[in-house]
Amino acid sequence: MSGEVGPAVVTAALVIIGNEILSGRTQDANLAWIARRLGELGIRLGEVRVVADRDDAIGAAVNGLRATHDYVFTTGGIGPTHDDITARALAAAFRRRLAPDAEAVRRLEAHYARSGIEFNRARMKMAEVPEGARLIDNPVSAAPGFQIENVFVLAGVPAIMQAQFDGLGERLVGGAPLVVRTLGCRLPEGTLAPGLGDIQAAFADVEIGSYPYYRQGDFGVKLVLRAADAGRLDAAVRRVMALVDDLGGAPVEEPPV
Amino acid sequence: MSGEVGPAVVTAALVIIGNEILSGRTQDANLAWIARRLGELGIRLGEVRVVADRDDAIGAAVNGLRATHDYVFTTGGIGPTHDDITARALAAAFRRRLAPDAEAVRRLEAHYARSGIEFNRARMKMAEVPEGARLIDNPVSAAPGFQIENVFVLAGVPAIMQAQFDGLGERLVGGAPLVVRTLGCRLPEGTLAPGLGDIQAAFADVEIGSYPYYRQGDFGVKLVLRAADAGRLDAAVRRVMALVDDLGGAPVEEPPV
Repeated sequence: MSGEVGPAVVTAALVIIGNEILSGRTQDANLAWIARRLGELGIRLGEVRVVADRDDAIGAAVNGLRATHDYVFTTGGIGPTHDDITARALAAAFRRRLAPDAEAVRRLEAHYARSGIEFNRARMKMAEVPEGARLIDNPVSAAPGFQIENVFVLAGVPAIMQAQFDGLGERLVGGAPLVVRTLGCRLPEGTLAPGLGDIQAAFADVEIGSYPYYRQGDFGVKLVLRAADAGRLDAAVRRVMALVDDLGGAPVEEPPV
Repeated sequence: MSGEVGPAVVTAALVIIGNEILSGRTQDANLAWIARRLGELGIRLGEVRVVADRDDAIGAAVNGLRATHDYVFTTGGIGPTHDDITARALAAAFRRRLAPDAEAVRRLEAHYARSGIEFNRARMKMAEVPEGARLIDNPVSAAPGFQIENVFVLAGVPAIMQAQFDGLGERLVGGAPLVVRTLGCRLPEGTLAPGLGDIQAAFADVEIGSYPYYRQGDFGVKLVLRAADAGRLDAAVRRVMALVDDLGGAPVEEPPV
């Protein structure tokens, strides 16, 4: 898709911080979850970068993306160990001092007192944020995330990240959510392609994605149509249904996700 | 981890092209597979970007990453439909003309003749590559990928991408593969952190990653150690085992993956 959809598109980028993703040891579980949540808020995920646990790599990704997107999220690297360097890297990227946040210290003290676990120097690192950052609540394990300008620094553990994200509330302001409709058919993608391209050319304000699948001898195409205007979307869907019908492809509309 | 491991590290980057990943509709399955294969070849995946189906986004990612990594791989966007624009975007990024490749045309003609499917204008698009590109075989569905300089353009469908990658043979030359060892223990990460940081400081040539997990009330930490030198790695593993033992964490080494 080459056109922007609608007049006021709100965009976000995601920086996934973690050698464990880059080594293939761990399958990322955060991208798809954040993408869907952002979609519900009318915010479009425009780019994702997975970077190593290195200050320069984290800083370059965040500084590049925060200039070109309304919101940037980071996941990972905010625990107590030596390889958790996100707060330090963000402080350097924003040229701010890294310092303990009094409220973060208070929350961690209370958390460890309750758990009977020592609040040692490594755990104290989790209270350090770039000066002027605003905390992001962590109802799961206390150690807060933080926000600097349009950058939101979240945990990498999915359950914690999701709780942090869902607590952001009015800090995220989206546009009109895109309406999405999905059609399935049993045609080979190349048979659909010429007619589908003509429909896309006639509907610049509707994004039409074509995704072939092959499983266990079965094959077909999922067609995903997205637009801000439900009426225009419906017109495009009717054109695509007619195209598939003409080609003998027995189109089926899937229920909304 | 902040240090490079070993003297001659061969690096790669991956550009995942696809609105379907950015919308959260589809879970990427290629990153982890490519990361592991590269690791076996002694090539380190240094960065991944997921970009939209837009010429400028694809071009910026590929041009940025091919200057800083030994190899760049792209996945997705090489089918017959209007949203498959990778070849066109790569031609623009390399300032080369996009033109049908005679051998690619021959392979597609033979494939569609065998299948009794029309070789229409949309399917002809799959034979177009930037001038001077070298084809990458596709034993699954004929439409080839291609290589320009250090950039390898692969399909997005995992079964096709994997077959293409495994056919690259001597086109990829890695360094010494890192040796990996993994320890599990039941300590909270913050209890391990001070001692673990001291060990990391003493072993700059060993990368030590610490990955906490929480599942169904159970928790613990996986420690993943990587190095080019198996002897140094073994020394670091022994230090970490002793640390965990001292803390009462009952360390267990996991069998190699």
